[in-house]
Amino acid sequence: MAEYDPENIFAKILRGDLPAHKVYEDEATLAFMDVMPRADGHVLVIPKAPSRTLLEAEAADLGPLFAAVQKVARAVKAGMGAEGVTIQQFNETAGGQVIFHTHIHILPRWTDVPLRPHTGQMEKQDVLAAHAEKIRAAL
Amino acid sequence: MAEYDPENIFAKILRGDLPAHKVYEDEATLAFMDVMPRADGHVLVIPKAPSRTLLEAEAADLGPLFAAVQKVARAVKAGMGAEGVTIQQFNETAGGQVIFHTHIHILPRWTDVPLRPHTGQMEKQDVLAAHAEKIRAAL
Repeated sequence: MAEYDPENIFAKILRGDLPAHKVYEDEATLAFMDVMPRADGHVLVIPKAPSRTLLEAEAADLGPLFAAVQKVARAVKAGMGAEGVTIQQFNETAGGQVIFHTHIHILPRWTDVPLRPHTGQMEKQDVLAAHAEKIRAAL
Repeated sequence: MAEYDPENIFAKILRGDLPAHKVYEDEATLAFMDVMPRADGHVLVIPKAPSRTLLEAEAADLGPLFAAVQKVARAVKAGMGAEGVTIQQFNETAGGQVIFHTHIHILPRWTDVPLRPHTGQMEKQDVLAAHAEKIRAAL
């Protein structure tokens, strides 16, 4: 099993070494805007405790983590005026994972609006900031 | 907000009114094979407590639910000899939900093997039984 790499970008965000558009934080979790959103209002929730994948996280950390996911998902849906929410979580490269700190994708959804493909294109900072503000206001 | 419909098919599976290829069960959760798998070894984990969506579930139920998801995901990966695991969870029709009892999809993944599209095609019962046996053996 691979080792956790403390230089991954989510670890850097947790340490404050990289900026993020934060929407929620508690003792155990942090939520912020995905900089390459597959839908407007795409948020990531991460545990503060280091783990490579959800399969390797401490079982005792999962309750607080998914309580935060639920809280943020409700705010994403309300704040973005979405009709539904898709939650995705990828483990290992074959499972779709790119950054090796456990993270959960919260994607607001609207009828007949497919998720955008991964383009590698960064969203504009002012757009991310505006979406974060809408979501924080709904928390 | 819509009401929970106790005649949904997962409620019927929980009551024993419909069969399922079960792989795991505890006080709070049940896991069984998806009958229209998007990957070989596709498993669903559901809470026993009734809720339409993850956003409407009791927050206190999320710890036991995702502890089971983690346990089953590890067994799916090991039992199916997968390289990764993708977890998906859909809320409301716009979010991709079809059956309105909260459920989490666990999809074993292999390099360069895309998820199959939703075809509406039922997998053969003996194939589902064989996959369930492999996953149970890894629990």
